[in-house]
Amino acid sequence: MDYVSFFQQAVDALKHEQRYRTFAEIERDTRRFPHAVWHSPQGERDIVIWCSNDYLGMGCHESVVEAMCATAREAGAGAGGTRNISGNSHAIVELEAELADLHGKDAALVFTSGYVSNQTGIATLAKLIPECLILSDALNHNSMIEGVRQAGRDKQVFRHNDLAHLEELLQAAGARPKLIVFESVYSMDGDVAPIGAICDLARKYGAMTYLDEVHAVGMYGPRGGGVAERDGVMHRIDVIEGTLGKAFGVVGGYIAAKRAVIDAVRSYAPGFIFTTALPPAVAAAAATSVRHLKESGLERARQQAQVAKVKRALDLAGLPQIVTQTHIVPIMVGDAEACKAASDMLLADHGIYIQPINYPTVPRGTERLRITPGPFHDDALIARLADALTDVWTRLGLPFVAQAEAAE
Amino acid sequence: MDYVSFFQQAVDALKHEQRYRTFAEIERDTRRFPHAVWHSPQGERDIVIWCSNDYLGMGCHESVVEAMCATAREAGAGAGGTRNISGNSHAIVELEAELADLHGKDAALVFTSGYVSNQTGIATLAKLIPECLILSDALNHNSMIEGVRQAGRDKQVFRHNDLAHLEELLQAAGARPKLIVFESVYSMDGDVAPIGAICDLARKYGAMTYLDEVHAVGMYGPRGGGVAERDGVMHRIDVIEGTLGKAFGVVGGYIAAKRAVIDAVRSYAPGFIFTTALPPAVAAAAATSVRHLKESGLERARQQAQVAKVKRALDLAGLPQIVTQTHIVPIMVGDAEACKAASDMLLADHGIYIQPINYPTVPRGTERLRITPGPFHDDALIARLADALTDVWTRLGLPFVAQAEAAE
Ligand SMILES: Cc1ncc(COP(=O)(O)O)c(C=O)c1O
Ligand SMILES: Cc1ncc(COP(=O)(O)O)c(C=O)c1O
Repeated sequence: MDYVSFFQQAVDALKHEQRYRTFAEIERDTRRFPHAVWHSPQGERDIVIWCSNDYLGMGCHESVVEAMCATAREAGAGAGGTRNISGNSHAIVELEAELADLHGKDAALVFTSGYVSNQTGIATLAKLIPECLILSDALNHNSMIEGVRQAGRDKQVFRHNDLAHLEELLQAAGARPKLIVFESVYSMDGDVAPIGAICDLARKYGAMTYLDEVHAVGMYGPRGGGVAERDGVMHRIDVIEGTLGKAFGVVGGYIAAKRAVIDAVRSYAPGFIFTTALPPAVAAAAATSVRHLKESGLERARQQAQVAKVKRALDLAGLPQIVTQTHIVPIMVGDAEACKAASDMLLADHGIYIQPINYPTVPRGTERLRITPGPFHDDALIARLADALTDVWTRLGLPFVAQAEAAE
Repeated sequence: MDYVSFFQQAVDALKHEQRYRTFAEIERDTRRFPHAVWHSPQGERDIVIWCSNDYLGMGCHESVVEAMCATAREAGAGAGGTRNISGNSHAIVELEAELADLHGKDAALVFTSGYVSNQTGIATLAKLIPECLILSDALNHNSMIEGVRQAGRDKQVFRHNDLAHLEELLQAAGARPKLIVFESVYSMDGDVAPIGAICDLARKYGAMTYLDEVHAVGMYGPRGGGVAERDGVMHRIDVIEGTLGKAFGVVGGYIAAKRAVIDAVRSYAPGFIFTTALPPAVAAAAATSVRHLKESGLERARQQAQVAKVKRALDLAGLPQIVTQTHIVPIMVGDAEACKAASDMLLADHGIYIQPINYPTVPRGTERLRITPGPFHDDALIARLADALTDVWTRLGLPFVAQAEAAE
């Protein structure tokens, strides 16, 4: 049996569909983020990263890096075991306290990633609720979809951010237990869920709520607690899930909730139990970042300012951005090949790195460039970005839009 | 609806069954590993860790720690994105080359953990093989079981390490594609799979092989390639999976295989695609550890020597160890409560930390203390360990065995 041929065919199919992915090899540089080195086929090149999910540059913040180094020197490069078997470091216990405080919850639980938090977290919660029906937003992230699937419970998908549809499903479900799973900021469109209104429906129909704030923690709310904090509804959400790998700049994920909820997930979730814990050095770095962003609003303010400037510059240039209320600035291309060509041209000719976003990350026909301006993208970089995009759009014959249209 | 009560009940059930877990809070100290600080309810206590999966102490190795620090200072505390979207660091690319070389394969792929490697790796491989039947060892780790489940393919479980049963199932399966998934060192019993003989069967019946070497990489084989390397059969295994979190002392997981296999998993596995990459600092630390253990046999030799001494000391003391050919030394207790009591007494009265291993990690009735001696457990610590265990066994009235019996 020629097994390799099965895998070769699978790879060839992707190439045929123009959706084979190549990863740009990037060397970040803490001293001059978002500038970085690209290990191109032709050698090292200086570039500017415009698509990082280290949204606030905290991964390059000296206090975060130094916390990682100091704790690595004290406690080592790894945890040395699962949480239960010798891997429960002092640093990870402290991190969980920090996260519980961030979200105003009794307790928090750290996982190896946000992905694992969602996958094993949602599955375990839904399994522990008898007869649970899961109500899941249509645009939920793959990690949530996998968690819902792994739960093996009945599920219904409500149209994206559609309160009427959600209410219809809640009503039809009757008195059985129900879990609503959704996100605050949807990362590819940059739109935001009506969290308070969803909480109203949850109360009205007796549902539990699970909110993914992966693209919001650190960036929204007076202490970086996320959109739910900003909207004053954090206390109404039952389970908040977040990542330590985006605005907090490190790696790992977590949930925060009432003590019994956390204790149950801690005790039952296989993806939590049967895996090596995050290194204490990672936990200490993440805790430092969380603590910093609780107290400092500077990074958030500067990010918002630079995001607004980018949106305005793209608008003036007539580039077809999706108008968002968030730090996520997608420019629509709508074709996989053109999207990749635009990205390649930006990188090769302008030293600007914006990865093309193609299927399966977004639906076919909605391929886009996704720009994430941060506090370190200064005004000169923004001007260069708008010029470069204009050049690429012109050379590829991609459509421009009227200013009013884009600004709507 | 009182959702919290569902979770409270689930936690209460564990307490009722005596299998509610509490995690000892441990602060490791690189300068004096395996000595550490235990944050006990009564304050800080000095202890010796005897149950670490940092099997060789590489997490405390200066070169590994310094690689983490140097790379964190250069490239930051996190990767800043998924592998596809700005998170593909130079360090992780180098790590993958190091791992491919370790196992003599074309390519390797790094995941956030060994758990995720198995879960999304096995699921993706099996989904890409048409009509695949998965043959899975009965004692496979939870991460492999979840991977098999997520594949949604037909599966059959063969009795643990039972070649006759495996052959029976292979024969009965006929000509369809087949994937055999198994481990080399089984971590709770410390026994070893007949890898070469399983490869013979795989060839005879045209099956593909997937081997988890999580508890063997770094420790077996002339370059630390694992038991398959030691046995001279590494080239016969199609996919080797390992962790960076145990003998390599950091965190993360990987698979190594032919290029098309790796490229397909890279392109299709959701648990790889939709998650933040490991930080470059983690990748650099792991690569340093892998490189060190390829060249140095000292840690392995010293580990083997100290393991042999521990086994002899337990034998002389008449403690009921399970005789193994590996670095894993389980002492059978066979009762959850007694196991926890023994562990508590060792920690409180002797400053010796050996976590009790209870259900669901092992079957009920086989609860045990699992000792993992490493190169840094010197002869004096070994003598203290045997004395402490003897004291605890006596005070709890646990059965001793005759020397000949234990040594069999
Ligand atoms: C909405 C959402 N949830 C969860 C995740 C996973 O988080 P992590 O990268 O920490 O695994 C991501 C992206 O990575 C995401 O976009
Ligand atoms: C056999 C086996 N495979 C995989 C894993 C998971 O590896 P990791 O700890 O890197 O997630 C473990 C334990 O943690 C294991 O015992």
